[in-house]
Formats: sequence, structure tokens, C-alpha cells
Amino acid sequence: MRLKEIYLDNGATTKVDPKVVEKMNYYHLEKYGNSSSNHSFGQDAKEALEEARGVIAKSIGCRAEEIVFTSGGTESNNLALKGLAFAQKVAGTGKNHLITTKIEHDCVLESCKWLEKQGFQITYLPVDKDGFVDPEKLRVAISDKTVLVSIIHGNNEIGTIQDLEKLGEVCQEKNVPFHTDACQSYTKTEINVEKQHLSLVTLNAHKIHGPKGVGALYVKKGTKLTPWQHGGGHEFGIRSGTENIPGVIGFVEAVKLASKKHVETMAKLRDKLVNGVLQIEGSRLNGPGIDNSENKRLCNNTNFSFERIEGEALGGYLDQHWICSSTGSACSSKSLEASHVLKAIGLSDEQAHGSLRLTLSRFNTEEEIDYALKMIPKYVEKLRKISPLGRIVQAAKKLAGGGE
Amino acid sequence: MRLKEIYLDNGATTKVDPKVVEKMNYYHLEKYGNSSSNHSFGQDAKEALEEARGVIAKSIGCRAEEIVFTSGGTESNNLALKGLAFAQKVAGTGKNHLITTKIEHDCVLESCKWLEKQGFQITYLPVDKDGFVDPEKLRVAISDKTVLVSIIHGNNEIGTIQDLEKLGEVCQEKNVPFHTDACQSYTKTEINVEKQHLSLVTLNAHKIHGPKGVGALYVKKGTKLTPWQHGGGHEFGIRSGTENIPGVIGFVEAVKLASKKHVETMAKLRDKLVNGVLQIEGSRLNGPGIDNSENKRLCNNTNFSFERIEGEALGGYLDQHWICSSTGSACSSKSLEASHVLKAIGLSDEQAHGSLRLTLSRFNTEEEIDYALKMIPKYVEKLRKISPLGRIVQAAKKLAGGGE
Repeated sequence: MRLKEIYLDNGATTKVDPKVVEKMNYYHLEKYGNSSSNHSFGQDAKEALEEARGVIAKSIGCRAEEIVFTSGGTESNNLALKGLAFAQKVAGTGKNHLITTKIEHDCVLESCKWLEKQGFQITYLPVDKDGFVDPEKLRVAISDKTVLVSIIHGNNEIGTIQDLEKLGEVCQEKNVPFHTDACQSYTKTEINVEKQHLSLVTLNAHKIHGPKGVGALYVKKGTKLTPWQHGGGHEFGIRSGTENIPGVIGFVEAVKLASKKHVETMAKLRDKLVNGVLQIEGSRLNGPGIDNSENKRLCNNTNFSFERIEGEALGGYLDQHWICSSTGSACSSKSLEASHVLKAIGLSDEQAHGSLRLTLSRFNTEEEIDYALKMIPKYVEKLRKISPLGRIVQAAKKLAGGGE
Repeated sequence: MRLKEIYLDNGATTKVDPKVVEKMNYYHLEKYGNSSSNHSFGQDAKEALEEARGVIAKSIGCRAEEIVFTSGGTESNNLALKGLAFAQKVAGTGKNHLITTKIEHDCVLESCKWLEKQGFQITYLPVDKDGFVDPEKLRVAISDKTVLVSIIHGNNEIGTIQDLEKLGEVCQEKNVPFHTDACQSYTKTEINVEKQHLSLVTLNAHKIHGPKGVGALYVKKGTKLTPWQHGGGHEFGIRSGTENIPGVIGFVEAVKLASKKHVETMAKLRDKLVNGVLQIEGSRLNGPGIDNSENKRLCNNTNFSFERIEGEALGGYLDQHWICSSTGSACSSKSLEASHVLKAIGLSDEQAHGSLRLTLSRFNTEEEIDYALKMIPKYVEKLRKISPLGRIVQAAKKLAGGGE
């Protein structure tokens, strides 16, 4: 029995980098002032906050005053969608149409469902077999009532990286604000608000070795948002609440620590994992292929389906060896329904239930991948032997004269 | 020049206890799993979360499943007010009236203003000269359209502790849910949801030596709230977003560390400070007196007005000696308007502008108070000498034959 986890669930959350913790602790214990206080002690915190804002801004090519700190990706996505929709409602423009996709994170989809109850119309764009949105389908969906297009950048389940530049061009041409949820892609592939024609971008810290409970929303100057959390007017009046300085400092430190080299390391491990797992008979990779020259798949994402087994059961066996995996997003892992993302790319219920997501970080090692590649085939085989479906197939093979 | 701050702005935020930081670090670095993940590593985090929930619940006399973790007091207050109001709207009950007071925190008042724009009616109850709400005035204000009464427990500016039991009796009698913002009072005076007839209670961590960015909302079983942050259905479907486990663990550790002895220590220092400052001619204590047997004022709050000076200027001089003070709440400290709380208890604009808030914590020492008591009179005198108003009064005194 191993004493230490093999953590292959970095799409759910990541270990906080010790250097991040160190920076945060200084602001917990020494510079703990309220950045809204007028005294120098508070202003020291304020200074750190503004410096942090500049770092995030630079990383996506916007201005510091366009970054609003929030409590995380879920809040940023809620604020982007509801804030923009309600701003239109309050202004009485009569515009009430939003466009998103069938493969968004729950926080976007549930916000949309809620907005539907408030009188908004939502278009859920389909995706192709690899999870890509067709810019032409987006173009057709936009009407003169459309107030926002929201498309996830790097998909959290199958790793698809959308071509934001092409999609953004359509939005710009039609003069509709473009939002992307970049929680999974941030620091892993380029985000540039100018080039990609973005008006709103959701970022968060805990997927990149920063702390939980911190995120940001880029809000392009001139974009009208109804604040979703009212109070003392913090964050340019868009998001009130005492600034979480240690959290923000941790977030920024995580961004500073992220590097291109880490991306390469993760992609290398991902490729090894994919090539190893695809040796298993009846396995498939969900989402785009791993041609690194094309940058179509998140460097840390793998998602497999195995015929004749339940992903949940496979995950359970791996867990016995302290290999952390998931069947979909952590948020919906308690649900027994098949993943809406896997269904959207055309998988059957059975295929979707047979899926396993393994997501990497720069803390993973080749030894860990080797170990996983020993365990996965072993338990896929075991499960196929004991599952009713597996047994039927085996029996059929025997009848047909073949081996196992 | 001192090398270390004398931090008397604990109403704005507090230093995080080193023991709190230690606990949090373990969940940043070791048990960093996502509590919504199915693997044991995630379930370890889940277990810690549920244990934490139980501790908070016990501290206010409710059940664990009635505690919803949030990103802080501002979010909890927003969720309580807007969530409850919108639940009525969605249900189409036609009930659209909320009652609050004139001395609430900005996040309650601004949420109310926004709800007014959404078609709700708000009654802002007045308070007496010490900041107390009259239960009879509350009774009269409640109509059959009233959906919620929201009254701050311990006032953040003047320390008034409302008699929740009496106010709650009125709400119970009229069958209207009762919410209190207990950010300043939590762990400092009793909160008991049964005794005080509460349906919703806002709590947060960073006022009690816990981390920024974490709070909770007690939601009495059966209270219908529209979630304000949609997503993966975390926190019983009321508040989605990856659970901030390190934050929650830090919050709970802070609650565990709080003790009655700390309350006594703070009250003793407060009394010393009040008695010392009131020696200054033309000074007054805003809010209730400091009779500790009556428990009418927060153990850590003082708020003074000084005739003929600006509190802002006094704070500036104290800041030169690294004494951290404030003129009101941190959130509104950037505004030049006189405090709405001080105006509500009947102070003139001039008196309100002459105010200084000094708020204590268990980390303060008698030596610090002694030092503050040397500096405050010195700079009050200095300011009076240089202020135009001060000079006129001095001249008048001379003309009248008196000394300074």
C-alpha cells in the first residue's frame, strides 16, 4: 500500500504550491490590514492588491483596472452572465438573448437556466465530436437581441481548447460581448483579450496551485454589469466584500510560478498516459487528439472511455491504490447522470458511464504515470471479468472459439 | 518611531491567529483534495468540511445541515436578503416588503436599494440615541406583505448590541423570518437561533482572527432561498462553488480559539480606553455606555466624537505613530459623507465628522492602550489649535478672560 497519493485529479483542484502558501502567510500574520482602511497599515495591503491586479492584467493583455477579484470561478461566471443580463434588463433595452454551448461548466449552465426563469432566452450551441464549436453556427445564432456569447475556453472534462480568436471575430463582427470561462486553460495556453476579442474572462486560482476561494473576472472597459454582490463598493463597485488580500497574493504568486516549461512537462506526461492507456482493447480518448503542434487539447487533460465497464468502478479500484481520478467534473461527480459533455460529443450513455478523467499537474512525475499505467489495464480487465456485460462478451468470444 | 503597529482597527479586520494559519496550511499542502471528489483523498477533505460545519452549528445552537459556507459576510448578507426576496418573487406570493434599519452595514443597505429597483418595498427602521431598535416600532412596521426582517446584531460602528430575543419575539409572533448580521458580534456575545427566533444569521471569519474570504449563513430548515450563486449544487444547493476547505478550517479554528476570557480582556481594555478618552474636554462616546452588566455594547468597540476637529485628521496623526484607527467602517472610509450610523443616532454632520473608532482584539495590550491614551489627547489639542474652528473658540475664550 502506498503512503502518498498519486494525484491525477488536477482538473478538480490542485495542491497549493509551498511558495504560494509562504506569501499568503505573510499577509495573514504580518500585513493583515484591510485594504479599504485609510491608515498606512491598510494602505500597505492596498498597495499589494493593486500590484497583484497588475500581474493578472498583464498575463491576459488587459489593463489593471479591468480586473475584478472574486471568490472563484463560479462567482466570476455568475457575475459575468447574470450581471450582464440584468444590466440589459435594468436599462430596458429589450435585449434578452444569450448564447452558450452544451459543454459548459455547471455554473454557466445553471446560471443560464436561472436566467431563463427570469425571462431570458438561451441558445445552447452544439459541438462536434471533439467538442469544438463551429464559428458559423455561432454566427447564425446571434440575433439583434443577443446580449452575450459565453463559451468555455479549455473544457474541464475533455480538454478541448476552443479557437477563441475565430469565435471572437464573429462576436466582434456582430458587436456582441464575448465571455470565456478560462478556469482550466489559464496559464496553460494563451489568453489575450485583444487578439481573442474578449469582453469578459473568468479566471481562478485553485486550478493552478493557488488557493481555493479566489478568482477574477476581466471586465473590458465600458462593459455594463449589474453588481451581483452589493456592499461597500469594492473592486470598482462591481464586486463588494472585504478584499481577500492573502488569497489574491496567493493567486498572483501561482500565476508568477506558472511557466511554459511546466506546460511542456504536463503535455509529455499526458502523451505518455494517453499512448499507454490506448493500448487497452476497447478504450478510446474522448476529446481532441494529442497532436501538440495544434494546441487543441489542454496539456494536462485526458479522458478515456472503456467498453463494458463503469468508470466509477474503475475509479474505485484505483482509489484503493491511492490513485485519484474522476469520472467527470468534481462538481457533478455525485450525480449518477451521464456527463452532459460526453453526451454532447455523441457518446452513448454506456460509453459516457465508462469514462475516466485523469488530469495532471506539474507536480506529477513519470514514475506516477508508470504506476497508473500498470494499474489501469489490470482493473479494466478485472472489471470486465466480473461485470455482467463483460461476462456476456467473454462467453460469446468463447463460443466463437476465440480467447479472452 | 515605533517599529510595530498598534492595531486598533479590529472592527475592519483582524490579524489571523498563527494557530489558524497552521491548520489552514495543512489543507493547502497536504489534504488539498476537492471535497466534491469521490476518491478517498477528496473525501478526507469532505470529512473535515462536515466536522467544521458541526462546530459552527453548535456555536449558535443550530443543526449542521443548516450552515451554508460562503465567501464572507457580504455574500451571506446578499444571499439572505436577495435569496429570500427572490424566492417569494419566483413563487409569485405577491409579498414584496422587507424591513431593516438605518444602521445596517453597507452590504445590507445596498442590497436593499437594489431590491427596491426590482420592485420590493423596504422599511428602514429608525434607532434611538444609542442605536437601539424599538421592538414596538418593528411590530407596527410588519404587514402581511413582509417577507423578512433584517437587523444587525452588534453594530460595526458604534457597538450597539440589539436585543435579538425581544425583536425575534415580534417576528415570531407575526410569523416573519428574522435575519441578523452577526459579523461583529460572533464569539463576542451570545447568538442562539432558538432563543432569538432567528431564521437566518450571517457570520464571518476575518473579524475573529480567521481568514478573509470565508463566511457562513445559517439557514433555518424550511426557509426558502433562491441560490444567488449557481453551479455544481454545493452547500445543499444553496451556494455553489468549490468549497474553500482551508478557509473553512481556518474559520472553525478561530471559533474554537475564541473564549469568554478574551471577551473579558477586551472589555477591560475598552473600559480603560473609554474612561481615558472621556477625560478630554469636548469628547463623547457614541453608542451605548459601557456598563458591562447590561451587555449592550460590543466588548471591543469604542467610538468617540471630539468637538471642533475632524476625525480623519486625528486618525492621520495617530497613523504617524502607527496607531491604526478609523473614522467609520472600513468599507465606507473612502467616502467623504458623514457616517449614516452616526447620523441615525442623531449626531450633526460636524459631530459625525469629528468621530474616531477604535476597535480592540484579544491581541491588544494594556501598554498599547496607555500609548494611545497619551497620543489621542495630544493630537486632539494640536488639531484644535490649528483648526479655524478651534482658533475661533480659543480667541473667544481669551476675550472672555479664560485660559486655553
